[in-house]
This record gives sequence, structure tokens and C-alpha cells, in this order.
Amino acid sequence: MSSLDLAAIRAAHERIRPFIKLTPVLTSEALDTVCGGRLFFKCENLQVAGAFKSRGACNAVFSLTDAEAAHGVVTHSSGNHAAALARAAQLRGITAHIVMPTNAPQSKVQNVGSYGGWITFCEPNLNAREAACASVAARTGATIVHPFDDLRVAAGQGTAAVELLEEISLLDVILCPVGGGGLLCGTAVAAKALAPDIKVIGVEPELADDVAQSFRAGRRISIPTPATIADGLRTNCTGEKIFPIIQQSVDDIVTVSEENIIVAMRAVWEKLHIVIEPSAAVAYAAILQGKVPGAGRRIGLILTGGNMDLATLPWVKS
Amino acid sequence: MSSLDLAAIRAAHERIRPFIKLTPVLTSEALDTVCGGRLFFKCENLQVAGAFKSRGACNAVFSLTDAEAAHGVVTHSSGNHAAALARAAQLRGITAHIVMPTNAPQSKVQNVGSYGGWITFCEPNLNAREAACASVAARTGATIVHPFDDLRVAAGQGTAAVELLEEISLLDVILCPVGGGGLLCGTAVAAKALAPDIKVIGVEPELADDVAQSFRAGRRISIPTPATIADGLRTNCTGEKIFPIIQQSVDDIVTVSEENIIVAMRAVWEKLHIVIEPSAAVAYAAILQGKVPGAGRRIGLILTGGNMDLATLPWVKS
Repeated sequence: MSSLDLAAIRAAHERIRPFIKLTPVLTSEALDTVCGGRLFFKCENLQVAGAFKSRGACNAVFSLTDAEAAHGVVTHSSGNHAAALARAAQLRGITAHIVMPTNAPQSKVQNVGSYGGWITFCEPNLNAREAACASVAARTGATIVHPFDDLRVAAGQGTAAVELLEEISLLDVILCPVGGGGLLCGTAVAAKALAPDIKVIGVEPELADDVAQSFRAGRRISIPTPATIADGLRTNCTGEKIFPIIQQSVDDIVTVSEENIIVAMRAVWEKLHIVIEPSAAVAYAAILQGKVPGAGRRIGLILTGGNMDLATLPWVKS
Repeated sequence: MSSLDLAAIRAAHERIRPFIKLTPVLTSEALDTVCGGRLFFKCENLQVAGAFKSRGACNAVFSLTDAEAAHGVVTHSSGNHAAALARAAQLRGITAHIVMPTNAPQSKVQNVGSYGGWITFCEPNLNAREAACASVAARTGATIVHPFDDLRVAAGQGTAAVELLEEISLLDVILCPVGGGGLLCGTAVAAKALAPDIKVIGVEPELADDVAQSFRAGRRISIPTPATIADGLRTNCTGEKIFPIIQQSVDDIVTVSEENIIVAMRAVWEKLHIVIEPSAAVAYAAILQGKVPGAGRRIGLILTGGNMDLATLPWVKS
């Protein structure tokens, strides 16, 4: 795939439909009252393997030719893409090699194992991850499926926005958590094609603002490994394939504090009665923190995932 | 209403449809693998006000004549029925008087307040609750809407099973948490009318097994106030109106341990990525504890609610 457009996202949707869930869009009278608008939460925490990543991973794996697929796939990931790729490979009956950072949450490591992925641990930084991934690919002939800088992956991720817009009409804004930017890229392309007036706004932790910095600078900026609680958003730098699309299609990228991520996460657990991981909470945190006005607007929020260790909770003193 | 049948439940469904959500049915590949069957979770924790109780409360409130409604409604409840009745009354523009036990969870007290209910606290036992409720009714002329021994309420609760059976075909069993028995009563009547071969099994905590005892004895048995973690199921005795229907329509009532309730609750949080309260976990606990075999069967489980204090969790040592 050399470009990303609605047709590619529609094709991805048809390809992956047997392997993913049509996730519900939830609302909360209580949260609507707090913000004075209407909030529509697209619950990708309820997706298979607990995250939107199943969409992109399935599209990448089922796009391979049989000859390519025979050598398996390989990726590096902090967790959700890893589990999603392992599951997709298992569904196709091929091998998934997964390079994971040593600080990945235990629940995410277990998820990869439960889907039969072959795990290689590495240091928690981008260079180590990419080196380990390249080494496995060279040894096995496996196809690298990058967690975000891959247009097949981004096309798959864009299918969540398609479903959201097919179910909920007249949205003013879509808020999208940003790690490397794959979901943001697919979401923006889908949304702008289906509803040109919609604003697509990415949300990053202040501590992991590489894509926000890049967006303002007009060039890809790399940052040291971020320490944010939002483990799914700890990327160093956005991708060269997706960044031009983000620049062209996204309206803004805002950042939120660690404190607001935790408050937002707890509010979603309490009022929507669902478990979301910290990375998924940044979208609602942007409203809580006043970065995106909610009053009088219809806002879609993509809740990206729900995989986390429940032995400790950020608001419970240990 | 002098009897409960599918027609009454269908009528309730039409009456309450504008005021409740069609809740999703969720599945988990991981939980299916553990039990060897297919589990279909009807997510009433995602219902408005966070529990199935909105169904019965809306049916009762919108069944009143204008003359009755003018005096308001009154009930006693450990929490979810209270919030649901307060919300239903607010929607109809009438007063809801709520008698709550002093040990009700703070989150449930806040829910009642957020819907404009007038709260009266009382001692946490059935006699005190009923006395306070009767006193308010005598003073105000409000209609008593009993939390479970009311056929309008039971008809509303039965609509969850109707939705489950319309969405998921060929269920072998429906597992239903049992407090006073209103949900069980409505579920059994709906399920047996729609799918006569289905088994309807109630699940109670071992520590709150009043309905299980009554079911075996063939007469209503009262127990001291139970100490189970499942605060929504702390009833002393089932109701005289609903008990004959339960005897006639329910196949069995099984009990589960406190330990298995907590393990089941955590598994649902981790694998389904939703927040359920302890009371809702008893249905899956029955499978975990081997009280209801899961292998090779298609089992519907009603997850009754998701309201709980998130400051402490039963599996996190404080």
C-alpha cells in the first residue's frame, strides 16, 4: 500500500471483519452533565485482545501473500500491538515473533503468551527495540509489522472511526490518543473523508509529547523514552510514513498532565463502568483539563484499550 | 398487575424503552477457553444508573396513573434500586423518597442524590427498612415501589432476558444473581416463554442464601442480615408475590463462596474490561466454582450492576 485513503480503510474493514468485534459506543448522563456536551465513547477496550490494535494487526497479517505469510511476522511493541499481532498470526496459522521492552506490564506479556507469540525481551528504548526486531527478521525472513509506521496497520486502525461515524451522527470533534500516531493517522483520514467538517484532535501525555512537538515543528522530533503512566503512549518518535498524513489531516494535537490522566481514568471506570488503561484515558483528560471545550458539542472519544495490571491502581495508596 | 407473563414483560419493554439503554452482550475468548463453553454476558452494569434496576423502576413509575404519581414514590433499597427509582421519578417529574440502610456504599448514596432523591437513613435490617418506608408512605401518600416484591418491577427486570434472547440464540442456560428475587422472577418468566428448553438458574452468595433455602423448603425462609461482600444481595427474605412464580419457573438456585465471588469479579474486570460490582460476579462465580458446568454449553450471564467504591478493591491489600 503506497497511500492511505478511505477506500483502503474500507477494504481493511472487509478484510478484518470476521476477526474483530463491532465495539459498542457508550454514553454517560453523569459525564455529559459535567462537561455540558454529549460524549460518545468508542470502546476499543472491549475489542478482541482488549485494544484497537487488533484492527491494524489483522489487516496487516491478512494482507500478506501466502509466500510472505509462510515466514511469519515480527514486531516490537509495549504490549497491545504485540498481543494483537500474536492473535492475528495465530488466526492465520503463522508464527509471530514479538520483541517487548523489559518494562512492559505483566498483563500485556501474558496476553502475548496466551496467543502463542514468541517473545524476545529488550531494553526499553526505540533503538534496542528496532535492532532486536531487525535481527529476528533477518534470521527468520519474517515480515516486520511496525506498531504504527505501516499504512496497512494505520488503515486497520481507521476502521474504528468508520464504525463510530456510522453509528453516531453529527460529531463536532473526535479525540484520539496518540502514541506513535497510527491510530490518529487512520482516524483522521477516515473522519475527514466521511465528515469533512469534523475536527480530529490528537491527545498525548505532556511527558510523551513527541508527536505534538513534531506537529508544531513540521518535522519528526525524537524525545527520550517518556516516563508517563500511559504505557501505551511511551513512543520516542512518530513514523516517516504516517507523519505527512498526520500533518495534512489532523487539526491539532494537545497534551494532558499525569494527574488528569488518572482522574479521567477513574471517572470513566466509575461512570461508564468499564476498565480502561491509562493510555485510553488521555482523550477524556483533554476535556477535564480544558484543552478541548466540551460545552454544547458532540464529541467522539476513542477509548483505545483496557489491558492493565489490576493488582495496583494509581489512585489506591499502596 | 395481578400476574406476570410474557405479555406484561413485552408491555413493560415498550413502556421503558425511551428511558433505558439496549445494553451490549459481551464475550471473551479467554473466559470461553477457561470454561470450555461459550459465555454471553448481558451487561446491565452498562445500563443507565449502572444497574438493571432502571428497568423495573421505570416500569413501575411510568405505570402509575397521574393521580398516583402526583404523590410521588417511596422505596427502601441498598442502593441500585434506589438510584434507579430516583432517576425514573425525576424523568416523570415526581418526588422519590428513598430509605437506605446506613451501610450502603457511598457511591450508591451519591447516585441517589445525583438524581434528586430524598434520602432517609435507617438501620440495616429489613424490619427497619420496611417501617421507615411505610412511615413515609403514610405521611406523603407516596406509592411504595418495593425493590423486588412488585410484579411491575419484576416485569421490567425481565426485559433484560428478552434482549439477551433476541440477540443470542440457542442458549442452554441463563445464570441470574439473586438478591430478593425480582430479576430472577422476571428472567425465568421471559426465558421460559421465549425458549421453553432453557434452564434458568439463580445464584446467591452462600452467606445470603435465603432464596435458595426457600426454594428447597417450598416456603419463604427468613435469615439474619447477611454479611456477604455482594451488597446488592443482602436480603433477608424473598417476597410473597414473586416467590410462587420463582418456584414454578426457576430450575435451580445455587450458592457461591465469598472467595469465588472476588476471583470471578477480578476475572471479569481483567478479561472483559468492564467494572462490575460484587453482586454481579456471582453468576460467573457459579461456573468457576463448578456449581454450573460450562463445558460445551452456551450460557447467558446477567451482569447486574457496576456501582461500587473504587477507593478500595477486594483483591488489593490496604
